[in-house]
Amino acid sequence: MSAQKNRSSDSESGNSVPKAVVNRLSLYLRELQHAVNSGHETTSSSQLGNLLGFSDAQVRKDLAYFGQFGYPGIGYRCDELIAAIRKILGTDRQWHIAVVGVGNLGRALLGYKGFLQQGFELVAAFDVDRDRVGTKIEGVEIFHLDQLTEIAKKKNIKLAMIAVPAAAAQQVADRIADAHLEGVVNFAPVTISLPDHISQVGVDLAIELEQLAFSALKRARR
Amino acid sequence: MSAQKNRSSDSESGNSVPKAVVNRLSLYLRELQHAVNSGHETTSSSQLGNLLGFSDAQVRKDLAYFGQFGYPGIGYRCDELIAAIRKILGTDRQWHIAVVGVGNLGRALLGYKGFLQQGFELVAAFDVDRDRVGTKIEGVEIFHLDQLTEIAKKKNIKLAMIAVPAAAAQQVADRIADAHLEGVVNFAPVTISLPDHISQVGVDLAIELEQLAFSALKRARR
Repeated sequence: MSAQKNRSSDSESGNSVPKAVVNRLSLYLRELQHAVNSGHETTSSSQLGNLLGFSDAQVRKDLAYFGQFGYPGIGYRCDELIAAIRKILGTDRQWHIAVVGVGNLGRALLGYKGFLQQGFELVAAFDVDRDRVGTKIEGVEIFHLDQLTEIAKKKNIKLAMIAVPAAAAQQVADRIADAHLEGVVNFAPVTISLPDHISQVGVDLAIELEQLAFSALKRARR
Repeated sequence: MSAQKNRSSDSESGNSVPKAVVNRLSLYLRELQHAVNSGHETTSSSQLGNLLGFSDAQVRKDLAYFGQFGYPGIGYRCDELIAAIRKILGTDRQWHIAVVGVGNLGRALLGYKGFLQQGFELVAAFDVDRDRVGTKIEGVEIFHLDQLTEIAKKKNIKLAMIAVPAAAAQQVADRIADAHLEGVVNFAPVTISLPDHISQVGVDLAIELEQLAFSALKRARR
């Protein structure tokens, strides 16, 4: 275990860490992973900041919530900082994930290559269509939604992605609450109610387009 | 045209507006739309802030980049603020969008109901599979990727979503540059190079899971 890890664990409970900081940790992690894949062993707060459009002070301040990671005259050792951030985020272990709804989006999620390398293994999918139940997609077995609690327990599933039509999303959310999962990514374009102890993030694909529209318009106005 | 709109247009070029502020505009817009759908006519900076986990001061400061929108003793008139934010973002007009790649993710995007209501109309899809070209999915015609420049011009397409495998993403990005589009949402789990004048946002679906993992772990550590 590195000195960095020891120091980071002093404050790793992170109860007072702003959500935006945790979100940026994911971005730092991706850039560090790209850097390693491109053959870089070290980086700096200004390099990381430049890649993401943040100041170097912002990068240092964000990381300082969790410990002291840099070396004078060297900067950050990529592998060490990757390991430290994964430990902070909790992705130094493997998480078992379920996809609920195996229409086009659910199938796309089951085939998405970006999950496993970040510590997320899709171990089960759920649907209400009897023709789909019992089949496999991308090697993942499809169970009936009625089996969610049983299979989640058996396969140690803590997180789920909801990829059902808007009209079915709340019903699925209720099943997820019954199954005592800990977090949900909701792709349905609708707000769902979950007990407070279940974390949720909604993915609104139109937001990305809005940000592009603003950028395109800004250029046109110049 | 409302007084709000007139005032907002003074500063709407938004050259100095931080990206995070523009991102939050999208979030405010969604909450305002939810409020209207639930029958509310007015809201306040503290209500908006509460829904999103920001302070009321943050909400007021963000909106102040673009003008003065509230009324003393009333707060914000939802419809007016929705119209003002859509004007700022550029989604008061309809944008024509293309999807490149009609595998599972592309099909899911073509069927996603959340785009049209936000001002984004999917008018064409592109693929290199000759069996797909000429067919329609969700009413949208599939063209060959070779036709991108021609169809983009004909259908006034400015923005595209890349939903191809990682290995094909850069090749598609090059075609998009040739076609002089203005912005790209990249769903492929890989970084692509585009000319500086084309905006891009990458959607990394694993980031949402990482944020959930952190929340779940934080609860477990308490």
